[in-house]
Amino acid sequence: MTQACSLFAVSLYQAPATTADASSSDLKDVEEKIDGLAITTTAADEEVEKKTANFSSQSGLDKYSKLFNKTPIKDVLATGAALAKAGTGSGAEETDTDEVLLTAVVTGWVKTGRVAGGGAFAFVELNDGSTPLNLQAMVTEETATSSGLGSLKEITGTGCSLALEGDLKRTPKGTKQVVELKCTRVVYNGECDGGVYPIAKKKTTFESLRSQLHLRARTNTISAVARVRNALALATHLFFQENGFFYVHTPIIGTSDAEGAGEAFQVTTLPIQADAMMKRKLLSDEEMAALEAAASAKGSLVKEAKTQLKEDPKNEELKQLVKDRVDVLVAAKAEVEQAKHRRECPDGFQRTPEGVIDYKKDFFGLKSFLCVSGQLQGEAYACAMSKIYTFGPTFRAENSHTTRHAAEFWMIEPEIAFADLRDVMNCAEDYVKYCCKYLLQHCKDDLKFFNRMIDKKALARITQVADSKFARCSYTEAIEILEVEAKRRKGKKKFVHPVFWGCDLASEHERFIAEEHFKCPTILYNYPKEIKAFYMKLNDDNKTVAAMDVLVPGVGELVGGSQREENYEVLVQKMADAGLDAEEYSQYLDLRKYGTVPHGGFGLGFERLIMFTTGVENIRETLPYPRWPGNAEG
Amino acid sequence: MTQACSLFAVSLYQAPATTADASSSDLKDVEEKIDGLAITTTAADEEVEKKTANFSSQSGLDKYSKLFNKTPIKDVLATGAALAKAGTGSGAEETDTDEVLLTAVVTGWVKTGRVAGGGAFAFVELNDGSTPLNLQAMVTEETATSSGLGSLKEITGTGCSLALEGDLKRTPKGTKQVVELKCTRVVYNGECDGGVYPIAKKKTTFESLRSQLHLRARTNTISAVARVRNALALATHLFFQENGFFYVHTPIIGTSDAEGAGEAFQVTTLPIQADAMMKRKLLSDEEMAALEAAASAKGSLVKEAKTQLKEDPKNEELKQLVKDRVDVLVAAKAEVEQAKHRRECPDGFQRTPEGVIDYKKDFFGLKSFLCVSGQLQGEAYACAMSKIYTFGPTFRAENSHTTRHAAEFWMIEPEIAFADLRDVMNCAEDYVKYCCKYLLQHCKDDLKFFNRMIDKKALARITQVADSKFARCSYTEAIEILEVEAKRRKGKKKFVHPVFWGCDLASEHERFIAEEHFKCPTILYNYPKEIKAFYMKLNDDNKTVAAMDVLVPGVGELVGGSQREENYEVLVQKMADAGLDAEEYSQYLDLRKYGTVPHGGFGLGFERLIMFTTGVENIRETLPYPRWPGNAEG
Repeated sequence: MTQACSLFAVSLYQAPATTADASSSDLKDVEEKIDGLAITTTAADEEVEKKTANFSSQSGLDKYSKLFNKTPIKDVLATGAALAKAGTGSGAEETDTDEVLLTAVVTGWVKTGRVAGGGAFAFVELNDGSTPLNLQAMVTEETATSSGLGSLKEITGTGCSLALEGDLKRTPKGTKQVVELKCTRVVYNGECDGGVYPIAKKKTTFESLRSQLHLRARTNTISAVARVRNALALATHLFFQENGFFYVHTPIIGTSDAEGAGEAFQVTTLPIQADAMMKRKLLSDEEMAALEAAASAKGSLVKEAKTQLKEDPKNEELKQLVKDRVDVLVAAKAEVEQAKHRRECPDGFQRTPEGVIDYKKDFFGLKSFLCVSGQLQGEAYACAMSKIYTFGPTFRAENSHTTRHAAEFWMIEPEIAFADLRDVMNCAEDYVKYCCKYLLQHCKDDLKFFNRMIDKKALARITQVADSKFARCSYTEAIEILEVEAKRRKGKKKFVHPVFWGCDLASEHERFIAEEHFKCPTILYNYPKEIKAFYMKLNDDNKTVAAMDVLVPGVGELVGGSQREENYEVLVQKMADAGLDAEEYSQYLDLRKYGTVPHGGFGLGFERLIMFTTGVENIRETLPYPRWPGNAEG
Repeated sequence: MTQACSLFAVSLYQAPATTADASSSDLKDVEEKIDGLAITTTAADEEVEKKTANFSSQSGLDKYSKLFNKTPIKDVLATGAALAKAGTGSGAEETDTDEVLLTAVVTGWVKTGRVAGGGAFAFVELNDGSTPLNLQAMVTEETATSSGLGSLKEITGTGCSLALEGDLKRTPKGTKQVVELKCTRVVYNGECDGGVYPIAKKKTTFESLRSQLHLRARTNTISAVARVRNALALATHLFFQENGFFYVHTPIIGTSDAEGAGEAFQVTTLPIQADAMMKRKLLSDEEMAALEAAASAKGSLVKEAKTQLKEDPKNEELKQLVKDRVDVLVAAKAEVEQAKHRRECPDGFQRTPEGVIDYKKDFFGLKSFLCVSGQLQGEAYACAMSKIYTFGPTFRAENSHTTRHAAEFWMIEPEIAFADLRDVMNCAEDYVKYCCKYLLQHCKDDLKFFNRMIDKKALARITQVADSKFARCSYTEAIEILEVEAKRRKGKKKFVHPVFWGCDLASEHERFIAEEHFKCPTILYNYPKEIKAFYMKLNDDNKTVAAMDVLVPGVGELVGGSQREENYEVLVQKMADAGLDAEEYSQYLDLRKYGTVPHGGFGLGFERLIMFTTGVENIRETLPYPRWPGNAEG
């Protein structure tokens, strides 16, 4: 190990990712372009890169897997590739396949394996999730036997787990892999019966993988998504922390039902209690009367005994009799109360006189729901801490089966005090760019995978967003542009939806503006007040509000945000116009009453960012455990 | 501004935090010790410090508040203190109070303010949440007037929002503040009526602040908690990312009811639908029959019209009549169906033949709950990605009103594949230490505040944990130690709970072990299998399982973890022993069936870490929007 350790500090991305197999020269071209990517970098960008570079280089032994003293495959491959290259000058005709580049223990799960040489040795492609790249390992029959294995077949099945010790060596020239591990010992193996393993080697559909959520992270695509998701989450924290934002955990459970749109899940303990109550017998009037009579009789028995005791107050037996009969009476009375309660809740629920479920009896003492946004609470924290962001799960009970909707998803919602719409737009643009740059710097192999296997435009899209200044265009200007275009268009190419000032822009309009007119990511702003939410700041024109949407190629709207109305009277009026109850929003109004400040923020659906960067088409592949109507398992 | 900008890069913590007012010399001693804190640092620690140092230094103008071109108060104070010091040699008798150290716009909310000099000027203490320290600003009546204010009183009320432009100057020697801002312009102000402002200047109780969740982040303690919470969240991500763990979002909604312990909140859309259904009239048998008869009559009318049309097939009027009558019939039939459905659900709920609510009709098609842990899904991801961690909200429907329980809280749950209990213990110890070190490096002013105002032992506790190697002691050894102590103890000091091998350790036992016996953070491990969860790995002694708890001074158990049982047969047996249904855990068992690996992990309640580091005694102060029985508002 000593030889390797000192060299493991080499960053993965400084080493050529030569183990990736490019299936066509076209693709190779694209990827080489990406390798030499000329993203315009400013001094600030370089600062970011310096700060974050550390997260991509895992160096040497895995600190928390001392059990095997293993090294992540990502590091073995990176260091191995660097060492392999260092030893061979460009002019060398022969490759030295004997030199031990490094010695390491690696662990992981077999992607593919085969026995070769008439049973003399086996090749396995091992993956441990640290990188999309597999490590090729070669195990001889001798090594297998000396390691206590019965047969090489015990380690070649897809899905087998392995810990292998070996020497990393160069492969002969012309081999797909640059290096391979010649195993000296099989340290550990866990078998996997290929006959029943649900995620077989052969190509499978995303849909069928959704019934194997616990195993699908072992597939190339889902594990690449997991790494990109991880990188984007970290990039999110780094961006906001570097800019002085505080991370705030806004509540998941709350009392807002999202304006009663039926999109909020209810959180309750009542149905469980109701089902328990239903298991108790519901007495008829006669049965109830009999129960009460029985209790009353027990009361008489107590009285009787007490009278006897009065006459003979020192009689210990009588004292005991009174005690016993009181106990019986208490139990009988409790039974009566329970039975009455059961009769009050014939269906198990306590109800108000109007017949609706009485939520005063619920866990929180009122109807409560899963959050659909953390914005309102985020504003409160911004109006104390100046700059905050949320990053947490959000919920929609929409009965939607599209590829873009999930019942549970993650949102990022920054909020900035002492800021206006321009500040919000600047922040959104910088954040999205930061995420793209971060991925290009830290997930190159995964991005190449997506570009090759999922979406041939993915890399070009990310690079463009990382690199270009976003266009900014007011809604009114956009309508003018669209009206000109609408006149120009004829026949089939006509816009389906009519264009006029005041219309809600359709996807076809947004796409024309961003993809055809400006040909770059575009921020639209200052929308008609009628088509936007009540809390958005009314502009001086009295017609538009300070709202903005960020449109990016491929997915359309990625970010929506606004400056918030900070004027108390205007907000009260806007709420009345929207038919909202000021009482329910008293805390929100308080922020405008006590030291109000201009402020604003935006929301970004995290999964949409993942879909945008990876090209994955269904949101159900971007979430580790997606939830949608009819599906909450795994 | 130009003068300031180039100097703003000075880190806050390189500058002396001289603006803090120490109320006693004792406290000052403790704090000075903390300033010169000699935490044993290794090369790795320094690496960490280097990486993370950037997050504490906000430099210069606030990028996303161009509206005011403001600078965070944290930076103004840090740079100001450094500049003030640089200009005055230690021997200087006189302080130059005229020199403009820097010019800046600051924003924030007034903590306290007063008009002085017979109305000639006002002092305000301004806070923007970027630091616990306030900036003192002085505004003359002239400045107020030229800025359009009617009176200085408009800006001195607690809670007022302000944007002030001014020159930062030294204060005369002996003044509590080192620097103050001499305002040249009041750029913005938002009034706050002290008479009705719910969080008054005078001391208030934490309990009363809980009814003002939207404003309480403006108080010293809650904003300090918010900064510590933010720092610990970032430290969590940095620690795991630096060590190659992937952040995984395990699901919030799932089908596990936590073994039916009644601790899971149900997530449902049925009660809302039921309440809507209850608003529709429930028809009697007679009414139902009448409705059906009416529909049937409408059917006859259709037939009649059709017969007529057959006789006169070109009659347009008849055609229309058929159409109209069909429409009426369809509507009538729908009404019948609705009424039938309503009669099937007399209480609004669809029920199974057994009378229990039919969850097949619920949003997810089955009974679903809020997660009580992400461990099971975390294990699945670790068995693909090798090292993962979760950091998300978790829920308990316990009817608990203690200071340590919340219905909604955040948990961190790492999971490591190819690891054993020792690896898990190493990881937990390093993580907790990392968090403490991170706070000492990045939240010194907040920690000083807590140490002064909330818990005089807080700083000593964090420093000890950051600095000392944790003791490790098996459960069996712990019992031996406790038995010796139990014999030694007499009278009132006796343990309340009996000590014997197999007993669940009580808090008094844990505290003796950690605080009195080892006198340092202690990890207890290898507990009797009977008192631990089914999934923990059975040790070779067949009596204990590979479980561990980390005990820290002050709060007791901070972390609980284990190696997981990776042997399929053993796990099946343990589940049977625990009375669990193997069918329900089939995915969990699959991980042991397909390439099983030794693995383990731990869980840490994030709020407990905050209570431990700040000394805040009630969990309700550690969450921005705490939820407990009867409380989900705000």
